Amino acid sequence: MKSLVLEKKDDIALRDFPAIDREEEVLGPRDVRIKMHTVGICGSDVHYYTHGRIGPFVVNAPMILGHEASGTVIETGCDVTTLSVGDRVCMEPGVPDPNSKATRLGMYNVDPAVRFWATPPVHGILRPTCVHPEAFTFKLPDNVSFAEAAMVEPLAVGVHAATKARIKPGDIAVVIGAGPIGLVTALSALAGGCARVYVADLAEKKLEIAASLSAAIIPIDVKSQNIPEVIKRDTDGWGADIVFEATGSPKAAAGVFEPLCPGGCVVMIGGQPDPISYDAGAAMIREARIENIFRYAHVFPRCVAMLSSGAIDVKPLITRTFAFEDSVRAFEIAASAPPADVKLQIELPQ
Amino acid sequence: MKSLVLEKKDDIALRDFPAIDREEEVLGPRDVRIKMHTVGICGSDVHYYTHGRIGPFVVNAPMILGHEASGTVIETGCDVTTLSVGDRVCMEPGVPDPNSKATRLGMYNVDPAVRFWATPPVHGILRPTCVHPEAFTFKLPDNVSFAEAAMVEPLAVGVHAATKARIKPGDIAVVIGAGPIGLVTALSALAGGCARVYVADLAEKKLEIAASLSAAIIPIDVKSQNIPEVIKRDTDGWGADIVFEATGSPKAAAGVFEPLCPGGCVVMIGGQPDPISYDAGAAMIREARIENIFRYAHVFPRCVAMLSSGAIDVKPLITRTFAFEDSVRAFEIAASAPPADVKLQIELPQ
Amino acid sequence: MKSLVLEKKDDIALRDFPAIDREEEVLGPRDVRIKMHTVGICGSDVHYYTHGRIGPFVVNAPMILGHEASGTVIETGCDVTTLSVGDRVCMEPGVPDPNSKATRLGMYNVDPAVRFWATPPVHGILRPTCVHPEAFTFKLPDNVSFAEAAMVEPLAVGVHAATKARIKPGDIAVVIGAGPIGLVTALSALAGGCARVYVADLAEKKLEIAASLSAAIIPIDVKSQNIPEVIKRDTDGWGADIVFEATGSPKAAAGVFEPLCPGGCVVMIGGQPDPISYDAGAAMIREARIENIFRYAHVFPRCVAMLSSGAIDVKPLITRTFAFEDSVRAFEIAASAPPADVKLQIELPQ
Amino acid sequence: MKSLVLEKKDDIALRDFPAIDREEEVLGPRDVRIKMHTVGICGSDVHYYTHGRIGPFVVNAPMILGHEASGTVIETGCDVTTLSVGDRVCMEPGVPDPNSKATRLGMYNVDPAVRFWATPPVHGILRPTCVHPEAFTFKLPDNVSFAEAAMVEPLAVGVHAATKARIKPGDIAVVIGAGPIGLVTALSALAGGCARVYVADLAEKKLEIAASLSAAIIPIDVKSQNIPEVIKRDTDGWGADIVFEATGSPKAAAGVFEPLCPGGCVVMIGGQPDPISYDAGAAMIREARIENIFRYAHVFPRCVAMLSSGAIDVKPLITRTFAFEDSVRAFEIAASAPPADVKLQIELPQ
Repeated sequence: MKSLVLEKKDDIALRDFPAIDREEEVLGPRDVRIKMHTVGICGSDVHYYTHGRIGPFVVNAPMILGHEASGTVIETGCDVTTLSVGDRVCMEPGVPDPNSKATRLGMYNVDPAVRFWATPPVHGILRPTCVHPEAFTFKLPDNVSFAEAAMVEPLAVGVHAATKARIKPGDIAVVIGAGPIGLVTALSALAGGCARVYVADLAEKKLEIAASLSAAIIPIDVKSQNIPEVIKRDTDGWGADIVFEATGSPKAAAGVFEPLCPGGCVVMIGGQPDPISYDAGAAMIREARIENIFRYAHVFPRCVAMLSSGAIDVKPLITRTFAFEDSVRAFEIAASAPPADVKLQIELPQ
Repeated sequence: MKSLVLEKKDDIALRDFPAIDREEEVLGPRDVRIKMHTVGICGSDVHYYTHGRIGPFVVNAPMILGHEASGTVIETGCDVTTLSVGDRVCMEPGVPDPNSKATRLGMYNVDPAVRFWATPPVHGILRPTCVHPEAFTFKLPDNVSFAEAAMVEPLAVGVHAATKARIKPGDIAVVIGAGPIGLVTALSALAGGCARVYVADLAEKKLEIAASLSAAIIPIDVKSQNIPEVIKRDTDGWGADIVFEATGSPKAAAGVFEPLCPGGCVVMIGGQPDPISYDAGAAMIREARIENIFRYAHVFPRCVAMLSSGAIDVKPLITRTFAFEDSVRAFEIAASAPPADVKLQIELPQ
Repeated sequence: MKSLVLEKKDDIALRDFPAIDREEEVLGPRDVRIKMHTVGICGSDVHYYTHGRIGPFVVNAPMILGHEASGTVIETGCDVTTLSVGDRVCMEPGVPDPNSKATRLGMYNVDPAVRFWATPPVHGILRPTCVHPEAFTFKLPDNVSFAEAAMVEPLAVGVHAATKARIKPGDIAVVIGAGPIGLVTALSALAGGCARVYVADLAEKKLEIAASLSAAIIPIDVKSQNIPEVIKRDTDGWGADIVFEATGSPKAAAGVFEPLCPGGCVVMIGGQPDPISYDAGAAMIREARIENIFRYAHVFPRCVAMLSSGAIDVKPLITRTFAFEDSVRAFEIAASAPPADVKLQIELPQ
Repeated sequence: MKSLVLEKKDDIALRDFPAIDREEEVLGPRDVRIKMHTVGICGSDVHYYTHGRIGPFVVNAPMILGHEASGTVIETGCDVTTLSVGDRVCMEPGVPDPNSKATRLGMYNVDPAVRFWATPPVHGILRPTCVHPEAFTFKLPDNVSFAEAAMVEPLAVGVHAATKARIKPGDIAVVIGAGPIGLVTALSALAGGCARVYVADLAEKKLEIAASLSAAIIPIDVKSQNIPEVIKRDTDGWGADIVFEATGSPKAAAGVFEPLCPGGCVVMIGGQPDPISYDAGAAMIREARIENIFRYAHVFPRCVAMLSSGAIDVKPLITRTFAFEDSVRAFEIAASAPPADVKLQIELPQ
């Protein structure tokens, strides 16, 4: 099977990769086999490519990349009841231990035993087919395209963050960071009840894209504007109900309480490799609540439903599509972080 | 001051009404005087007109009708800080005792001492001007019209119901009843995070209006369709996350648990004059949560923000507008409940 | 194996019961085999004995009774990691489908596929040994006796109810009903944060037992006292924060809102075979929240921890203990509902 | 009126202090005049004495100290309805602006306009009488002594922290810090539903006091024990449900996530003058929730109810009592922080 393989840092190739003896390819009774259609390129894929590691996860052996995927069911295990051959589907890339305490409590995303695509030593799915549990494979309605469906994975991060924020209808939110995760968070916050969402970033081009997504998204250019000043001005000095930190930048994280209203909530989405500075006094006088987000749980079917009903539209975020044979070039372009691009996707031959 | 006065059951007149000695007309230090612009006709106004009472509230003396209002500030009390003469505003019709326990806990709507417009013995505001506390008067942005602003009061019921439901992004909801409150609840549920909202009613015309409001609203005609069957079919047998009861019909209320999913929430909005039948077994096997709604609290500014940002559009619900001098006719038409009408409004001379 | 068998309505016998081919006796990789020590008699066991059915669950074939149990692990499956032979344990009687949607969401108690001991056609555990999943078997600390451990099952109902109530420290609660479930609910409400718990019943003897459990439990004799009057008097007219309905009596259920404060919560614990009367107006003016309870989920280890630390003491509730060979007599006594008894237990030979 | 006056840093005196023209002494219609009985010495009183300031609050003029108080009503304003002359009471030291947005939302503690006793420029109540709003004065039941009542203020911090933690019955908590606030937090966490509370400190003597309060309190001596190791050992590796940070030490605050379970909650109680280090990665993989506490709101009557019912016993925390004429010596002793003392109180002449 031809696959997009990260051989080692800075070295990827589209080449045959032996499936023989690979546990992933054995169809269990509750599994389905899926022919891949579209795979999005995530910042983490690019980071493995350019750095060879993310924190404790080190690429020590050739690894197939990719974890944002949609495709078609081509085989079903004997106990599968909700999916059939021919069903168009998207797939949740992390599969937890069904018997762990976290999973049984309904929080499988914090199960340390989760196996997650394209996280060493687990292979990703930039390859023609994969085997996946029925429970983490979701049927698509006719009006959700494969391209939109491959956006469900990043969207799930935003929807999970919006869920944890416990938005009340009419809340005002700030999203710090206008990268792909910042943008799906802004869309999720709006769909989840916010009246207005301010999106703050340094990059003008990204702010333009953010502002184009909805009249209820207001860009803040942090090169020329001060976030708390803008928010205080627009809320009669009260502050924003929710602040989503979606940059992973220590500097951005240090300022999350300034624009926040009394009793407000900060949601930390961006991964921070090192401890950050926490303004305990500013948090205290507001009685701020902070929610820390790790991936998502139970939101894929919700995302599919919102794409289908029109509650969220991710199509404007898909800025470029490549053929599978151009995968290496797609990654090179992604690694150059072109400012006008949000999400690059790869289509596999059908 | 010429006012629309309910003299007694079945008898309304547009006539001079003496303001002398009326406590309402004295401007306190934290009050504003407002010139009325638009007033919506509520089902409760019509019910007082046609029945002379609502439950324990009996019209024993001539009473001015109307409580859904917008207007312009024409005078401010000496301690008013957030409003100025000329500000366009909408007004919350119920004013609680600021010192009651409920008010101090943040739940002023359940303060038994609330004084509410057009609820005997408190006069309504179908009259040229009124005096109102600054704290319950909300400034309008330029892009929210007087007509939309006079819709904030009914919308607040829907937004409060959606808030109490604690919607999670992507939830599926059912709204039983496609009257004005059912429709604002459907809009609020969508704006508050639902992926899809099913609206059920007997009246075909009302369902057409509901369906026209959003692609994410799906009508259920209960003359030919069974609510739980539709919901179970569309949710793989799981059920709806939230059921809003917005009819006040005992029969509708008796069936609220059937379409509900395990762990789901029922929100009772429709007032019920008598005890209703509660299917305790059906509630129990789902571990249903039930929230009972009484008006709203703290949601007017949220509604204004959502109208301004486009998160909610109430304009399609305003189906007819009358001049103040045609108020009596407007009430007669409202009392006939024309099926193609949602909200009738009255504009006062400026 | 000698077991306590309900042959049919009104007919129980202690007799050999064939285990051959019984699926329950096959030890799976994640199962343990347990030698039974103590089994409590539940109202539902007695009801099957005296009525032959509970709602839709009909005893059509001989069935072993009993589901409140503690014992000792005597064999472990090959994948068991948290339990060893010799461990003293208590067991959760309901085992859900691990792959159901409800289970994966963390609400396994509302999974319709739950298999529950002594609920037709599933046998109970008034027998020498049983096989049970490790995940639903909980190790006991040295200072929790087998007798106390066999109380964990009914206690779990109270603790689950107290959890769902979302008690705030210092809340005032009312428990309607002073039977075993009412009493464990009162203890759970106190341990869960209530300042005071009022327990209401008709039976003087039961109220005496309730009052003896804690100085913070205040009995209300509904033969001579009116619940809302007592509560209003003791709360300056405000009402109780939480009302637990633990009788299953339609009459008691009809009055749950009267003693409730604005914004308060009613928890329905008692099973009701028929629809009950719901005072929608009283619920609405308080914006009451109602939680409906079905058994429990994830609370067994919590109960064990609270018994061990002394946060809850169930020993006063165990009013009589019988030897296994006297099981039939124990059930006859239980069926006569002696007023001075709370919980009867049976000890198996070791 | 003889009062305990902090003249300036390091200089206190018991001397006449002119009440003439003091706004505090004018009895408004909703105020009561109180004869002081018992006043506790708080760490903040001592800090003003030894440092002359706390953060932005600087003692620029002589200020009366003391804010933990109980006494007797000796005069009532004309609109007071819930209190009478002779009532024994305790008083909440912070009075917010009743018209602020935070107050109206029910969060008066985060109203920036709060006037708080013994916080410059507001005088404290180590003086014979004071005038206070009825709404922040709470009647004592007969079985709550003046000494216990003067403990309600610090206890309120612990009860508020326990409320914000949203404890579930049977939770395991860690309290970092065994000072007065750590101890009331431990008592509140137990009363609020915890099965066990671990209290960690460096001072052996304080840990002894902590352990003496309840069998469910387990001391951790951080000189010889590692908090996360103890917790992981006692929870099968899962972690504590809640961690309360009650030291205000940056070092303690930096380690709050290590003992925390997945999905757990950290409550920050201790004031931190500077930004602290936040281990974002540790917070994220647990999806930790953090609640920041600022004083308390709406908990005084709850504390009184829990003291009265026996749910919480603060008597062991009152380790020494001084006569009013020995106030200066009491402060000198308090400033020396004797390790065997928790709370020092001063009794005024009656």
